[in-house]
Amino acid sequence: MDHKGRLRRLQQELSRHRLDSFLVTHAPNIRYLCGFTGSAGVLLVNERGSVFFTDGRYISQAREEVDGRKVAIGRKAPLLAAASWLVTRRKKLARAAGVLGFEAEHMTVLARKQLADVVTPVFRLREAPPLVERLRMLKDAEEIDSIRAAVLLGASLFNRALAAVRPGTKETEVAAELEYAARLAGAQEMSFPTIVAAGPRSALPHGRASAEPIPAEGFVVCDFGVILAGYCSDMTRTVYVGHHTQEARQIYEAVREAQQAAINQVRPGIAVGEVDRAARKTLKRRGLDRYFTHSTGHGVGLEIHEAPRVAAGQTEVLRSGMIITVEPGVYIPGKWGVRIEDVVVVTDQGCEVLTPTSKEFIAID
Amino acid sequence: MDHKGRLRRLQQELSRHRLDSFLVTHAPNIRYLCGFTGSAGVLLVNERGSVFFTDGRYISQAREEVDGRKVAIGRKAPLLAAASWLVTRRKKLARAAGVLGFEAEHMTVLARKQLADVVTPVFRLREAPPLVERLRMLKDAEEIDSIRAAVLLGASLFNRALAAVRPGTKETEVAAELEYAARLAGAQEMSFPTIVAAGPRSALPHGRASAEPIPAEGFVVCDFGVILAGYCSDMTRTVYVGHHTQEARQIYEAVREAQQAAINQVRPGIAVGEVDRAARKTLKRRGLDRYFTHSTGHGVGLEIHEAPRVAAGQTEVLRSGMIITVEPGVYIPGKWGVRIEDVVVVTDQGCEVLTPTSKEFIAID
Repeated sequence: MDHKGRLRRLQQELSRHRLDSFLVTHAPNIRYLCGFTGSAGVLLVNERGSVFFTDGRYISQAREEVDGRKVAIGRKAPLLAAASWLVTRRKKLARAAGVLGFEAEHMTVLARKQLADVVTPVFRLREAPPLVERLRMLKDAEEIDSIRAAVLLGASLFNRALAAVRPGTKETEVAAELEYAARLAGAQEMSFPTIVAAGPRSALPHGRASAEPIPAEGFVVCDFGVILAGYCSDMTRTVYVGHHTQEARQIYEAVREAQQAAINQVRPGIAVGEVDRAARKTLKRRGLDRYFTHSTGHGVGLEIHEAPRVAAGQTEVLRSGMIITVEPGVYIPGKWGVRIEDVVVVTDQGCEVLTPTSKEFIAID
Repeated sequence: MDHKGRLRRLQQELSRHRLDSFLVTHAPNIRYLCGFTGSAGVLLVNERGSVFFTDGRYISQAREEVDGRKVAIGRKAPLLAAASWLVTRRKKLARAAGVLGFEAEHMTVLARKQLADVVTPVFRLREAPPLVERLRMLKDAEEIDSIRAAVLLGASLFNRALAAVRPGTKETEVAAELEYAARLAGAQEMSFPTIVAAGPRSALPHGRASAEPIPAEGFVVCDFGVILAGYCSDMTRTVYVGHHTQEARQIYEAVREAQQAAINQVRPGIAVGEVDRAARKTLKRRGLDRYFTHSTGHGVGLEIHEAPRVAAGQTEVLRSGMIITVEPGVYIPGKWGVRIEDVVVVTDQGCEVLTPTSKEFIAID
C-alpha cells in the first residue's frame, strides 16, 4: 500500500489547517497511514515525517508492520508517550506554542484532558476535522483490488447460507455455516455480527442471528461480510422460505427496483443524497417509503461503515474511486422485511457493482 | 437481571456526586442498567427514574428489551434527542441550571461539543467518573451464573482446538473449528478475535490466528472466548507440538507456577497489584520476569476487558463477587511464548476458578 503518498497528502492537509502536529489515534486511520494492525498505538505526524508509538505488547508486530517510520515503544500509554515526546522536542527548539491537532471524533473527553495535562502550554490543542477519513474515501487501485477480493470471498459464502436455510434450522446455524466457510476461505473475521433474520424477525433491520428456528413461511434476510487483508465486504440477500404469496413477491421486486434505481444514480459528480432519493422515490410509488427506515448506504473499506454516508440530504459528491454500499430495505413490523445490498465502486464512467450475486427472487420450498 | 436494583444504586451515586442527571452512552453500561442490547441508544438517569432514547432502527428491539423504562424513539441521534428532552423539561420547571453528568471515558470530544450546544445554559456539563463500571465490578448471583455458563461453553471448545492442532494445519483452520463449534453450541459470537499463535508467533502476546501453518515443533498459544447471553468468557491454554526439549517443559511449568501463585492470592481484601506481584515474583526466581510484558489480568463480564485491571501497582481491592482473569505469560521474541489463563471469581472465603480445563503440559506428537 502507498503509505508514503498517503502521509504526504495528510501533511498537505495539516499545512492547510495550520496544524504543527497531528495525533492520529483511530486504529483504521493508523493502519491506513503506516500499516500497523494492532489495537494500541498512536501515530504522530508533522511536516517532517511521522513517529509511531505503541506499548510492550506490540513490540515485534510494530517492527514488522510499520512501514518506513520511526517506532517508539514505551511503558506509558502510547498517547501520553507521544505527548511527552512532542513536548520534549518542542522545548529544545524553544519556539512559540505549537498547534497540536487531534481527532475530535475519536478522542474521548478523558483522553483529551490527560493529553492537555502533558502538552499545555507548549502546545495548544485543536479539534481537527476527519482529515484521514476524507483521504480514505478515495480508494486507490490497490485498495479497490483488496475490496473486490473481500467482496468476492463474501459472495462465495452466500451459497453456503442458502444450503443451510430450511424451516426449523436455527438462524445461528445458518450463521455458523457461513462463518465457518469464511474462515476456511481465508477471512480474518466477519466485518460485523452476521444477520440472519427469518420470518417476523426479518422486519428488524439489525436482526442478528438468534437461536430462533426459521419458520415454515416467510422472508430470511442474510446480511454478512468478511474482512480480508484488512478490507471489509458487506452484502445482503433476502430469500423466501415456503410457498410465497403475490404480496411477498411484489414487495421483493419493489426493493429490488429501488436498489437498481439507486445504483443507476451512482456516478462521479452526483451528491450521495441523490442516490438515497432515487431509492426512496421508487418505494414511494408503491406506498412503501415509510417502511424504509434507514439510510441507503455507506462507504466501506478498512471499516465496515465509513464516509460517505449515503443518506437523505447528504451533500457529499461522489468521485471516481469511492466505494459505497447500496442497500434499501422495507420492514413491516411484526410481519416481514426485505433488504438487498451490493457494494459499488464509482468509476470514471459511472459505476461498477462489485457484488456478483444474482438478485433474482429465490423461493426455498 | 436486577435492573431495578442497579438503577437504584446508580441513583445513590448520582446524589453522592451531586449530579442532577446522568447520560449513559456506553453500550455495555446501558445493557447493564436496562437490558437493551443494540448499538445505538442513550439512557438518561435522574433521581426520578430513567428514559431510554434510540433511533428508528431499534424500535421493535427497544420495546421488547428495555426493562420497565420509558422508551423514546426519534429521528435525531439519541444523544441529541436526550439532550433536547432534558432541556425542554428543565425549562418547564424554571429552576436554576442543573448539573448533567456524562461518561468522560466514553464520550468523544466531538459528541461533547454537540451536547453542550444543546444543553447550555440550562445544564452545566460535568465529566463523571466511571460510575456504572464501578457498579459492574461486583457481579450478583445471576451474573456469576451467566459468566460461569459462558466459561463452561468456552472451555468445551478447547478439545475441538486440540483435535485440530497438527503440524501443517493453518492457525486459522484451528480457529475455524473452534468458532464453528462455538456457534453451534449457542455462542452469540466470540468475545474477541481468536488467538492461535504457533511456533515463533507464540511470542506475540496478541497473535491473532494467521494463515501460517503450525510448524513441526513449538508452542501453540490458544486464547479465545465466547459471548453467551451477553456475558464473556476468556481462556488461554498453550500446548507443545513435536518433540519437546527440557527447556520448553521448564518454561511451561514456570508460567503454570506463576499463574497458580497469582490465583493463590485472590481473596477479598487484597489489592489487585498483589495478585500481579505474585506472578511476577515467581517468574523472577527463574529469571523470566522481563519476558512477562503485559499485566496479569482484567475484569470480565459484559465486556471482555473491564474493571479492575490486575496490574503492577494497581490498588483496587478485591471483593466477593468480582470476576477476573489470571493470565501471566512469558514471551521470548522470535522463539516462543507460553500463556495460561483462567477466569476466577472472588468468593467470601477466597476464590473459585471457573475454568474447568486441565493445565497439565500437553505435547502433541
